[in-house]
Amino acid sequence: MDLKAYLNKYQSFLDEALLSSFASDAVPARLREAMNYSLKAGGKRVRPVLAFATAEALGAAPQKVLPLAVALEMIHTFSLIHDDLPAMDDDDLRRGKPTNHKVFGEATAILAGDALLAEAFFVLTQLEGVEPRCIVEVVHDVAVASGARGMTGGQQLDLDATGKVNSTAELEQIHRFKTGALLQVPVTASAKLCGASTQELAKLTNYGAAVGLAFQIADDVLDVTGTIEEIGKDVGSDRDNHKSTYVDLLGIDGAKAKAKSLVQEALLAIQGFDAKADGLRALARYIIERKG
Amino acid sequence: MDLKAYLNKYQSFLDEALLSSFASDAVPARLREAMNYSLKAGGKRVRPVLAFATAEALGAAPQKVLPLAVALEMIHTFSLIHDDLPAMDDDDLRRGKPTNHKVFGEATAILAGDALLAEAFFVLTQLEGVEPRCIVEVVHDVAVASGARGMTGGQQLDLDATGKVNSTAELEQIHRFKTGALLQVPVTASAKLCGASTQELAKLTNYGAAVGLAFQIADDVLDVTGTIEEIGKDVGSDRDNHKSTYVDLLGIDGAKAKAKSLVQEALLAIQGFDAKADGLRALARYIIERKG
Repeated sequence: MDLKAYLNKYQSFLDEALLSSFASDAVPARLREAMNYSLKAGGKRVRPVLAFATAEALGAAPQKVLPLAVALEMIHTFSLIHDDLPAMDDDDLRRGKPTNHKVFGEATAILAGDALLAEAFFVLTQLEGVEPRCIVEVVHDVAVASGARGMTGGQQLDLDATGKVNSTAELEQIHRFKTGALLQVPVTASAKLCGASTQELAKLTNYGAAVGLAFQIADDVLDVTGTIEEIGKDVGSDRDNHKSTYVDLLGIDGAKAKAKSLVQEALLAIQGFDAKADGLRALARYIIERKG
Repeated sequence: MDLKAYLNKYQSFLDEALLSSFASDAVPARLREAMNYSLKAGGKRVRPVLAFATAEALGAAPQKVLPLAVALEMIHTFSLIHDDLPAMDDDDLRRGKPTNHKVFGEATAILAGDALLAEAFFVLTQLEGVEPRCIVEVVHDVAVASGARGMTGGQQLDLDATGKVNSTAELEQIHRFKTGALLQVPVTASAKLCGASTQELAKLTNYGAAVGLAFQIADDVLDVTGTIEEIGKDVGSDRDNHKSTYVDLLGIDGAKAKAKSLVQEALLAIQGFDAKADGLRALARYIIERKG
């Protein structure tokens, strides 16, 4: 399987939908510009690609989960914009470009993040060809994954824990909230939209949980070993902010080994799926092999 | 009709539901504390009461729209927390108490706002006794009213326009986005949940639009004429921030007259409703007679 072509295909598919999201005048120009600036800044589109690959694994068309994919990328982008704010991580660079508030100012950056979060739920209501009951369930799952019970809660745990995390169990709890929830929901929500059976959903849930944590650990490793060109943000920025990482607790080799074992766990979870799940398998491996 | 008792009844009904929202440990303690701090800071609960009064006008139980009322108060509270941030209006006082970031710090205040917005959509999925299709429609309407196509978009227009607004038409456009959308949606979404006919919905939509704008104009008047005890925030803060208000453009008497004529318009829109709509009628009058 040509992973690069696979990623490119779905990234383009997503980008086309993202670009047309705010074509209308319904959104004030300056705000639209700020939202689009960060949405178009690139990125790996991991969450959307996970949603598409899950649809594929279940024999469904990727179109079916396109609004979910767009919504999740909006939520991810919102979190990056707010994370970069001076009051948060105070980062000047993101994906090799000036951060949103450096270009548009803090006030507009705050609003652009807020608007992307609200817009994500707007987009979810555009899901078609599924039972309304299922859309409501997906809205529920996405709200849980992005709010106080998920990503935003994890960011607070991260703030609270700065310089104080002593065990991998504690760090794992933070990351299950902070990044895990929004990496698992592309898989589980996509599975629900594509009519997965209870058994399939359980397997994919385990896949999503393992992949989500592996992704975070790989990020911690990259934060230390990557170059600024590869990862597009300041190398070692987590360390500068005195945040505990898996590398601090396990060392580079230990962290790499843990990520690898989680990827094995993810592959095991979906071993009963046929070749249509090869995309999910390739993505799991990509997570620990990527350079940025 | 005893308006004070009417407001108290519904305010208590709402507060009880708000208090139990985050009882669980699913939300990290510090974040929960920050969210609750602003949710419990009081306020007039105008949006929830509008939703309840609309249900009443249509002969439905207020319980039916309780999740909508809770969600809208969460979104309103989120907007206040972010509005008060140093990068936005930089306010130290809100409802007579220190603003969220003064108590919890800017980072947590940003996250508390984000989390309240996401939680609002979580709460909407708990609507019961209505068609899932209708819940999806309400999620859509609330997302539009709160995001780039509504309130958040209006805040950007307000930023863009600082010191530059020359006509009431321009100011009206800003406020239709900034405050109008989130004051209209309690009425229209509640009407949908309570099975309003197309004709009833059209009338209530006109009521909501007129009341929403009247509310903002009355706020502008209070910002100049109110005392700090009455309105619980710094008097004249809009003026300090060089924001154009209806008072700047129309004078105090002109602004009062415009608000009054909008309230007449609101009353006219629902004149075909029976006595069950007396709550909506009293609320329309309250908007221009309140002192804070």
